Amino acid sequence: MSSTQGKAIQCKAAVAYEAKKPLVVQDVIVDAPKAHEVRIKIMNTAICHTDAYTLSGVDPEGLFPCILGHEGSGIVESIGEGVTSVKVGDHVIPLYTAECQKCKFCKSGKTNLCGAVRETQGKGVMPDGTSRFHTLEGKDIFHFMGCSTFSEYTVVADVSVVAIDKKVSLEPASLLGCGVTTGFGAAVKAANVQKGDTVAVFGAGTVGLSVVQGARMRGCSKVIVVDINDEKKQFSYDFGATDFVNPMTDLKDGETIVNKLISMTDGGLDYTFDCTGNVHVMRNALEACHKGWGQSFIIGVAAAGQEISTRPFQLVTGRVWRGTAFGDIKGRTDMPQLLDDYEKGLLKIDEFITHRRQFDEINDGFEDLHMGTCLRTVLKF
Amino acid sequence: MSSTQGKAIQCKAAVAYEAKKPLVVQDVIVDAPKAHEVRIKIMNTAICHTDAYTLSGVDPEGLFPCILGHEGSGIVESIGEGVTSVKVGDHVIPLYTAECQKCKFCKSGKTNLCGAVRETQGKGVMPDGTSRFHTLEGKDIFHFMGCSTFSEYTVVADVSVVAIDKKVSLEPASLLGCGVTTGFGAAVKAANVQKGDTVAVFGAGTVGLSVVQGARMRGCSKVIVVDINDEKKQFSYDFGATDFVNPMTDLKDGETIVNKLISMTDGGLDYTFDCTGNVHVMRNALEACHKGWGQSFIIGVAAAGQEISTRPFQLVTGRVWRGTAFGDIKGRTDMPQLLDDYEKGLLKIDEFITHRRQFDEINDGFEDLHMGTCLRTVLKF
Ligand SMILES: NC(=O)c1ccc[n+]([C@@H]2O[C@H](COP(=O)([O-])OP(=O)(O)OC[C@H]3O[C@@H](n4cnc5c(N)ncnc54)[C@H](O)[C@@H]3O)[C@@H](O)[C@H]2O)c1
Ligand SMILES: NC(=O)c1ccc[n+]([C@@H]2O[C@H](COP(=O)([O-])OP(=O)(O)OC[C@H]3O[C@@H](n4cnc5c(N)ncnc54)[C@H](O)[C@@H]3O)[C@@H](O)[C@H]2O)c1
Ligand SMILES: [Zn+2]
Ligand SMILES: [Zn+2]
Ligand SMILES: [Zn+2]
Ligand SMILES: [Zn+2]
Repeated sequence: MSSTQGKAIQCKAAVAYEAKKPLVVQDVIVDAPKAHEVRIKIMNTAICHTDAYTLSGVDPEGLFPCILGHEGSGIVESIGEGVTSVKVGDHVIPLYTAECQKCKFCKSGKTNLCGAVRETQGKGVMPDGTSRFHTLEGKDIFHFMGCSTFSEYTVVADVSVVAIDKKVSLEPASLLGCGVTTGFGAAVKAANVQKGDTVAVFGAGTVGLSVVQGARMRGCSKVIVVDINDEKKQFSYDFGATDFVNPMTDLKDGETIVNKLISMTDGGLDYTFDCTGNVHVMRNALEACHKGWGQSFIIGVAAAGQEISTRPFQLVTGRVWRGTAFGDIKGRTDMPQLLDDYEKGLLKIDEFITHRRQFDEINDGFEDLHMGTCLRTVLKF
Repeated sequence: MSSTQGKAIQCKAAVAYEAKKPLVVQDVIVDAPKAHEVRIKIMNTAICHTDAYTLSGVDPEGLFPCILGHEGSGIVESIGEGVTSVKVGDHVIPLYTAECQKCKFCKSGKTNLCGAVRETQGKGVMPDGTSRFHTLEGKDIFHFMGCSTFSEYTVVADVSVVAIDKKVSLEPASLLGCGVTTGFGAAVKAANVQKGDTVAVFGAGTVGLSVVQGARMRGCSKVIVVDINDEKKQFSYDFGATDFVNPMTDLKDGETIVNKLISMTDGGLDYTFDCTGNVHVMRNALEACHKGWGQSFIIGVAAAGQEISTRPFQLVTGRVWRGTAFGDIKGRTDMPQLLDDYEKGLLKIDEFITHRRQFDEINDGFEDLHMGTCLRTVLKF
């Protein structure tokens, strides 16, 4: 039993007080976990575009002040009453997509979108409606995506955390909290791509390159990456792409990216994935699908209010438009398989860590995101 | 061997000379079938909205003069060289969705959209690039959808026709050429709805009511019909609907049809079907789907140039947008099962025939389509 159990902890965190302002690294108070809650000592956290999106102020659901961060890993410091999913000392990954295994969604067997803590998570509070984070002056700070990994200690619901094998290092494990899992799951679980299938991935960030890995692992015959940044070419080949197309420079006069992809694949792709968040790219991804069976998955998060569109004939002639959150991965059930793939070398994770920083440099970490050569910056406490 | 074999036949047909003009019932010349072609004596033909759509001139691919009609049945009069799919005297249904069983599409096992005659069919000619229809003056008349059932005799490709059991009457069989098969197939094959599923069908024409039948046959727990015409209420219940909602009259203040359907089904539908062709309805149908797994099928044909749209979040949170042509039914492989369902009373067909007319009254038949109480007018030669 840790000496801090049952007590509030004062520790370092990065607080987002306002949209568009740098985070403030300062001490905060983290309450002890209540029933069915888990307090985690965060060891590593990466910065994902969703954190930047909310910080930018364009996320209509963003709440301030809050503690951002949702791609992290750590060690269970203490648990509240009734927690059986993890125990003190467990190595864990916080999950922004909970898995209660009891709700209508979890029991359906058709989706990973658990409904257990959805409502309060969206409101920036714990399931009982209150926050575990406070300033030293006693003012409440909102949680974020049920994770808030930009704090040395965080509290999450017991359905929002998964214990992992201790032999996996916590640094790569942190990336399984969002981007890598999302892309890899999109390929191997949501789309369930098979040997010989043709795949196009739009956007070669951590998410897109993880789709590429899933497709390569399954033996897809073509894995075409489409990105407007040539610096992503080498990354794409390194992660397993067979082709790279830059629509800004690789199209002939009058050729569209859709035409080009259709001609590269004798009629279109079996599967396409949008990993950009751009609604025009989403349309191209759909329309590059093969008539009769091609399926397009939206993974990217579009700016608020933006809409996708196409002619209905695209769907009547057999293309399928879908999407996936967290790659359809059930965080508690499926994570062991991903760790196994990592250990076997089938899933690269360390290769995404292009930048490493101390937690105090978190605002520089947000700047790294804007560089074409940054996949992930991982912060260390 | 019939006395007409190998010779051109002069017979009655309804020729569409121009968009927006009535059809002209007159004698035409129908050539003998060439290799891999079949000449059929049409016994019955119904009028479908696609015929009216092309006749209206808004179909950008409409070609004139042509012989419309694609929902019919008849008897094989003669066959060209190399035809093995049917023989003289067979009762048959012409198929606007061919099934060659040899092309990439047919062999994929994933779609009914055969590619064999697609290109020439779209150009209003037979696979050799010429027409079998001519005026008495020798001017060519275009074929339509590979069927042209508005003629006492027609010629179709041997991959575009299926022989049916002679004990099934040819009058109901004609409706299997399009609307009934499209709706029923959409439910039982494309969506493959299961016992207990909840279903909403937008538009209670022949297509929508056939979706209803498929859902009822499979034991779906709710089959909600949405139609703006109250005259479709009784039809809906007769074909197996459990609920009927008229969005013009049945919504409370501030309620949308999407809200209403979601509240009627504890979170949304498992499957929805657009059978109206209205792109706004298509969006509602998607958004009324249950988060996590609801699938929406577009069956209706939208006006040229119209687009569907939605927020990508609808798909990222697990809804699936798809479509189907001819209900995913492979005309030659799957038709026996539909006939069997008809014979067993699981699939009503005769009940769609609200109007019967002699072939000469074909222009009145087009008028019938505008009446809310008309499902199908079947013409008899
Ligand atoms: N659905 C989910 O559960 C989920 C989870 C995590 C991230 N996401 C979203 O996935 C997307 C990708 O995340 P990431 O971390 O890989 O982002 P990233 O910014 O690192 O990568 C995006 C890539 O897309 C490329 N790109 C931008 N515009 C393009 C265009 N028009 N055509 C082609 N390529 C283009 C960029 O050059 C970049 O390489 C983001 O929208 C993110 O919010 C979704
Ligand atoms: N995909 C295919 O293979 C295929 C095949 C056949 C027909 N179709 C199309 O399917 C559609 C239906 O065909 P049908 O023969 O049943 O047509 P129909 O005109 O008989 O039926 C359409 C029904 O939709 C209702 N409706 C119209 N606007 C509506 C709205 N805003 N909300 C709710 N209901 C509305 C009408 O009142 C009518 O009852 C047509 O668009 C047709 O072109 C597609
Ligand atoms: Zn993320
Ligand atoms: Zn759950
Ligand atoms: Zn039709
Ligand atoms: Zn074929």
